[in-house]
Amino acid sequence: MATQAKRVEINCDMGEGFGRWKMGPDEELMKVIDVANVACGFHAGDPSIMLKTVRLAKQNGVRVGAHPSFPDLGGFGRRRMEIDPEDMYAMILYQVGSLNAILKSEGMELNHVKPHGQLYFYVHQDAGIRDAVIRAVATFGVPIMGLPHSVIRETCAKYGVELIPEYFPDIEYDAAGQHVPVAKCRPVNGDVVKERIHSFATDGCATTADGVKVDLGFGDVSSATFSICIHSDLPTALDNASGARAAVDELFA
Amino acid sequence: MATQAKRVEINCDMGEGFGRWKMGPDEELMKVIDVANVACGFHAGDPSIMLKTVRLAKQNGVRVGAHPSFPDLGGFGRRRMEIDPEDMYAMILYQVGSLNAILKSEGMELNHVKPHGQLYFYVHQDAGIRDAVIRAVATFGVPIMGLPHSVIRETCAKYGVELIPEYFPDIEYDAAGQHVPVAKCRPVNGDVVKERIHSFATDGCATTADGVKVDLGFGDVSSATFSICIHSDLPTALDNASGARAAVDELFA
Amino acid sequence: MATQAKRVEINCDMGEGFGRWKMGPDEELMKVIDVANVACGFHAGDPSIMLKTVRLAKQNGVRVGAHPSFPDLGGFGRRRMEIDPEDMYAMILYQVGSLNAILKSEGMELNHVKPHGQLYFYVHQDAGIRDAVIRAVATFGVPIMGLPHSVIRETCAKYGVELIPEYFPDIEYDAAGQHVPVAKCRPVNGDVVKERIHSFATDGCATTADGVKVDLGFGDVSSATFSICIHSDLPTALDNASGARAAVDELFA
Amino acid sequence: MATQAKRVEINCDMGEGFGRWKMGPDEELMKVIDVANVACGFHAGDPSIMLKTVRLAKQNGVRVGAHPSFPDLGGFGRRRMEIDPEDMYAMILYQVGSLNAILKSEGMELNHVKPHGQLYFYVHQDAGIRDAVIRAVATFGVPIMGLPHSVIRETCAKYGVELIPEYFPDIEYDAAGQHVPVAKCRPVNGDVVKERIHSFATDGCATTADGVKVDLGFGDVSSATFSICIHSDLPTALDNASGARAAVDELFA
Repeated sequence: MATQAKRVEINCDMGEGFGRWKMGPDEELMKVIDVANVACGFHAGDPSIMLKTVRLAKQNGVRVGAHPSFPDLGGFGRRRMEIDPEDMYAMILYQVGSLNAILKSEGMELNHVKPHGQLYFYVHQDAGIRDAVIRAVATFGVPIMGLPHSVIRETCAKYGVELIPEYFPDIEYDAAGQHVPVAKCRPVNGDVVKERIHSFATDGCATTADGVKVDLGFGDVSSATFSICIHSDLPTALDNASGARAAVDELFA
Repeated sequence: MATQAKRVEINCDMGEGFGRWKMGPDEELMKVIDVANVACGFHAGDPSIMLKTVRLAKQNGVRVGAHPSFPDLGGFGRRRMEIDPEDMYAMILYQVGSLNAILKSEGMELNHVKPHGQLYFYVHQDAGIRDAVIRAVATFGVPIMGLPHSVIRETCAKYGVELIPEYFPDIEYDAAGQHVPVAKCRPVNGDVVKERIHSFATDGCATTADGVKVDLGFGDVSSATFSICIHSDLPTALDNASGARAAVDELFA
Repeated sequence: MATQAKRVEINCDMGEGFGRWKMGPDEELMKVIDVANVACGFHAGDPSIMLKTVRLAKQNGVRVGAHPSFPDLGGFGRRRMEIDPEDMYAMILYQVGSLNAILKSEGMELNHVKPHGQLYFYVHQDAGIRDAVIRAVATFGVPIMGLPHSVIRETCAKYGVELIPEYFPDIEYDAAGQHVPVAKCRPVNGDVVKERIHSFATDGCATTADGVKVDLGFGDVSSATFSICIHSDLPTALDNASGARAAVDELFA
Repeated sequence: MATQAKRVEINCDMGEGFGRWKMGPDEELMKVIDVANVACGFHAGDPSIMLKTVRLAKQNGVRVGAHPSFPDLGGFGRRRMEIDPEDMYAMILYQVGSLNAILKSEGMELNHVKPHGQLYFYVHQDAGIRDAVIRAVATFGVPIMGLPHSVIRETCAKYGVELIPEYFPDIEYDAAGQHVPVAKCRPVNGDVVKERIHSFATDGCATTADGVKVDLGFGDVSSATFSICIHSDLPTALDNASGARAAVDELFA
């Protein structure tokens, strides 16, 4: 866990409780990861949880990015919603700005922005939302995490925003290289995660449930910068993160 | 309407709608005032309204501060609530940070912070909340608007925060120099407001409903820096603001 | 304004403020209409506004129905959202139940349910939501207001729910008999509304902007039961309601 | 677990999650208790969780009451708030009405109302809120659960509402018979709970941390009707409930 960006890093969504409710094992995960995506209050998180999570990251030398969402506390940001792109532009500024100030109060800097849940996929699928999100991120001068698709790369280029592509070793990909919904994925553990990262590191491919290799668009993984995402809300999250840590330390240290 | 701070300025709460709902005549008031306090979503305001209000201020050369509140959309931030000071510290960072980012997206800088409604009075009356609010404001390096009371001045000094004291010419003061609740004040208009400012400018006093002069603690008003607040939600808001504008231009231009 | 249901009635959405914010001129409209659709807190309305609106209806002899919505206070229930039908079923029970209790406290009975905004159209367009909404309404043993489309009629029949079809004289219909969005409709006033109702009463048709007659599916309007909706949030709402009142009293008294 | 009210019963707060967040082990507790207090969305709970919880209660033969709260999702209804009594009256109608409809959809009847968290204590301490809450409960014709204090008994008598007094064997009482805050109580387990209920059943007293006996105002516990509350959010909730179940079955079956 360094305070300097590395070529290949492990990220986790953090601070995804609300009020008295808690989501993942943040305290334990922070010891294992490089980068935390902190929820900003729209799908999870509240100001106190955000501050507590930022302090926890600071103690563990974990860099912190913002994890903005659709306004959907009741649906954890996972429901499709029709939001006007100009409204979304303002919502991203609002959410990232709120975390930015909390980081500033702790003497930390914003590391990146990673859209949450359904918004993550809208950045790929919806041109208006993609433009609004990336345009808002440009205000902060930090990279955005996302899928390595050409439409996203192009909009990032338009606004001068760096894209950090993400690989997900704890879920599956289909033959088109799309995420398989978590509920339909086979259970994983740290060993599976470790093995998948080793495999991905050789060719930039995922293997589907049917055993087909799919290139995920990361280019030359021996030199590309990318981030490995571990879901903090899976039952095996801690084991998965440890497996990922071991693989990353072996391969990219 | 200048883009530079003046010794005596007129401020108004702005952007206090929510979703489809609107509160005051912002478009008209912006033409008359110097400084806008923009609601940050906890008692009123949403990201889109905040952005729209910031752009409106920019067009009118009005400087913009944050107007954070208790988390009380249903009560417009006017209900007393028991909030833990550490929670309040995080809530101020969150709200001011959100506006700060919206200002940055428009190339503007945060001018000040003015606590809203019940929180404004807690800063005077509650030591824990006072400390939390002013400590949070210090993160942003801007002044706080508030009542010119010694406890507030002391906490501001502790954290290196400038206090801009406020005078309210459209409501009344009681014999202790406290605000009379709006519902119990006599109706006002632009002429009354103008006259009260002229009177205040001579001696720093307000006159109670019983005709008693009360010193409001501003010190020597011929040299002190202060702000004049016009309530944007009174029926006569526009006329009051015009009266204030005339008085300020005559006295302090 | 009767306390007994009539064959042809005038309905308005009411109580669509929130906290300190107000929407339409409810006090005046209540004097003119027969039936009020009271917002239940999901797109507008809060418990106090609901109670106040129910009391206002009682004073004016206006019957009251529930006006449930998607959970979308920020978007006034007008944004498309992906809601699981089982969640929607529970949301309708929740919202209608809340109004039902408020009515009971005033010795009144629930008159009907009218879905709001985007949900109104989902009842037509989305089979899962249609089934969920009408199934929930069946719990209360009251009619549902809606569009006179066969898919709606069929689901109502399945659950033993009466459909009260609605005609909208203050907006326009396209050649397919669909509502033209309010923003694209020509402005109206009481005379236009009155004239449109007279025309509709002769043949059950609307006339498009291009002058084409479209049958709206009400069947024989000389004997059918239906409701005439006046939008309470148009600038000319009061005049429109008065025009509708005059027409209805002339034609159907 | 009977479907008929018994003289001495065990109740638990249930359905206190929100969206994707969960609070206590409801599925297990439902097998042990007699009566569930279901959160109504203001401090916890949402329509889907309410419906799911009602169905779970139905399967287990557990009767269901409403568990309304201050509007405080972020503070779990545990923060003091200044709410106008008329607003509170409407909020109780709203919340209880919503659960009442969900019960009706499952062919069940509302069993009682139990105010949650801070509101529970306001019913004791604040005359305006006490009157508003009990007046609202009267609309539903069901008992209210609460502290056996004379001011509460008097207001219940005024509105014809039955008071079911509650004894809490998993927390401590001070020398004045008041609840000791959970955080300051010694940890408990099923054996402690069982022992305390046996002791309470002999004399209606609690024993303070200093070993002093305090009469809790239940009158003759050999004939009085009362309810025993087990906190569903303590780490030992299930064991505590089992201990209570054993004691109640031994003493009052």
